[in-house]
Amino acid sequence: MSIVLSGMRPTGKLHLGNLYGALQNWINLQDKYECYYFVADWHALTTGFNESKEIYNNTLEMIIDWLAFGLDPQKTTLFIQSLVKEHAELFLLLSMITPVGKLERVPSYKDQIAQLGESRTANYGFLGYPVLMSADIIIYKANYVPVGIDQLAHLEFTREIVRSFNHLVQKEAFIEPEPLLSEFPKILGTDGRKMSKSYGNAIYLADSEEQTVQKIKTMFTDPRRIRKTDPGVPKECGVFMLHNIFTDSQVYNEIETSCTNASIGCTDCKNMLIKNLNNKLRPIRETRRYLQENKKNEIIDNIKESSKTASLVAKVTLEAAKEAIFGNYLG
Amino acid sequence: MSIVLSGMRPTGKLHLGNLYGALQNWINLQDKYECYYFVADWHALTTGFNESKEIYNNTLEMIIDWLAFGLDPQKTTLFIQSLVKEHAELFLLLSMITPVGKLERVPSYKDQIAQLGESRTANYGFLGYPVLMSADIIIYKANYVPVGIDQLAHLEFTREIVRSFNHLVQKEAFIEPEPLLSEFPKILGTDGRKMSKSYGNAIYLADSEEQTVQKIKTMFTDPRRIRKTDPGVPKECGVFMLHNIFTDSQVYNEIETSCTNASIGCTDCKNMLIKNLNNKLRPIRETRRYLQENKKNEIIDNIKESSKTASLVAKVTLEAAKEAIFGNYLG
Repeated sequence: MSIVLSGMRPTGKLHLGNLYGALQNWINLQDKYECYYFVADWHALTTGFNESKEIYNNTLEMIIDWLAFGLDPQKTTLFIQSLVKEHAELFLLLSMITPVGKLERVPSYKDQIAQLGESRTANYGFLGYPVLMSADIIIYKANYVPVGIDQLAHLEFTREIVRSFNHLVQKEAFIEPEPLLSEFPKILGTDGRKMSKSYGNAIYLADSEEQTVQKIKTMFTDPRRIRKTDPGVPKECGVFMLHNIFTDSQVYNEIETSCTNASIGCTDCKNMLIKNLNNKLRPIRETRRYLQENKKNEIIDNIKESSKTASLVAKVTLEAAKEAIFGNYLG
Repeated sequence: MSIVLSGMRPTGKLHLGNLYGALQNWINLQDKYECYYFVADWHALTTGFNESKEIYNNTLEMIIDWLAFGLDPQKTTLFIQSLVKEHAELFLLLSMITPVGKLERVPSYKDQIAQLGESRTANYGFLGYPVLMSADIIIYKANYVPVGIDQLAHLEFTREIVRSFNHLVQKEAFIEPEPLLSEFPKILGTDGRKMSKSYGNAIYLADSEEQTVQKIKTMFTDPRRIRKTDPGVPKECGVFMLHNIFTDSQVYNEIETSCTNASIGCTDCKNMLIKNLNNKLRPIRETRRYLQENKKNEIIDNIKESSKTASLVAKVTLEAAKEAIFGNYLG
């Protein structure tokens, strides 16, 4: 069975964008592949060292969302990056064959430098982010990494590192991961921008039904519909995009027509969404609440345990890589 | 008892410059401090990835020299850097608080960039060399690091990282190491340049007495003494510098006078050095040969074992540092 690797930064409670984007994709993959999914807590430090104290709690909240939403720890290996020490070692090892110039040309690094201006520079760990990401992937001999089309370049970086290393040691020490191109539904926040925790425009699984009602009621819709009689362009409306997830396809198609010909108002449209969304999330939210209130310690114990499993797998790759470099290795 | 930390890159067999420089200093310190001495094999990769296959054998040869020359594993903790995985983890952790610009301004990095020219860049691991060095030092809570005056800037880098980290976590997680300023005797190679493996001008502990004779006989002396009757300047002569180590002080003083007033020739002076040097090194060389022929496996087993001891010490510091950053840490 092919191996899939993917990680999420511990940003805390997940919103609809996370759930129906990356997480739903993870769940879809868990029956078809041997999946390793991890909390990327080292990566969180590359840009958020000052908020490091929140990482523990954010990790826990995120894992609770994973489980409530249907990620199955019986089918996949869930782990926390910082608990698998082999990632750090392989990061150090790969750092020896990664040219600085190659890292400086990575677009996300160039963007940050541009934003910080000349007075400050990024930290060394942030510059090395693609090296750590490469270590994360290849240490599990992952065949596939689910990526959006905009992340293809990042994966290509990893593939180049693998080729360099294999060439250097004259054997196939690491496997070149392939992209598993994934299309994620477009999900907008309450303000019409992309749904994002940092924008404060997100609807969370952990929200109550009442909070959800309030958020959707104030949600930004197609700005061309000033009056109910103005025809809308549903494909550009965040409320309609959510109907795509929460409303069955027949009704969904009817809403599209009624919006386009202005026979339905935004309030009615929102009320339907509220009902469908809360209905669909109700059992998941109940599971979430149950886990939150009764299973925290068990969840932590379990992921610590499965991180040990991941560590055993990672160790095999790492030792082979060290052997390939050092020849007669002492370890 | 204060703690001292120092490492040597695994360059293989040690020459007189290594032995009567850094190694003699280590031995002098082993009774006064709790010393951690290590084989810096990760550091060897920062600049010599292509010769990585030699690291194992170079490590072994170097440790044999350490032991033959008098480093006492009962008094000190000897270890191999790559066997103490905590170094890699702390390297990753410190990388998150180290500005790239600070690393780019390190003189040894600037030198290498200048040498490589624009067509190639250094690798990321080499850029991060001072970060790894800092991890090496502070993970043992070292109070002192023996340095020559030209390495003070490197240690200051570590001290700054420590201050940054402690400030960030608002506690004294790490100890600021102090320099233990050490003066090393000046030792020239057979060609009059500084004794160095890479110059091919070195006399090794592992050399036979015959090899030593040949090397000293062809050794470069004061170029002003073309004829035996020309007065010499012994303080600038590599042969005389070695007399300082191998010849007792009364005879040493007599040689200085006889060279200065041209009453002794270089050949006689060299013959005295050959005799004294071989006499002094004879028992050490015998020990070396004995270890080499009979104790290799035991030496490897021992350093693997004492690397575990080092790892236990390193683990305590690392876990405390992670706790300081992550707050409620899962590990």
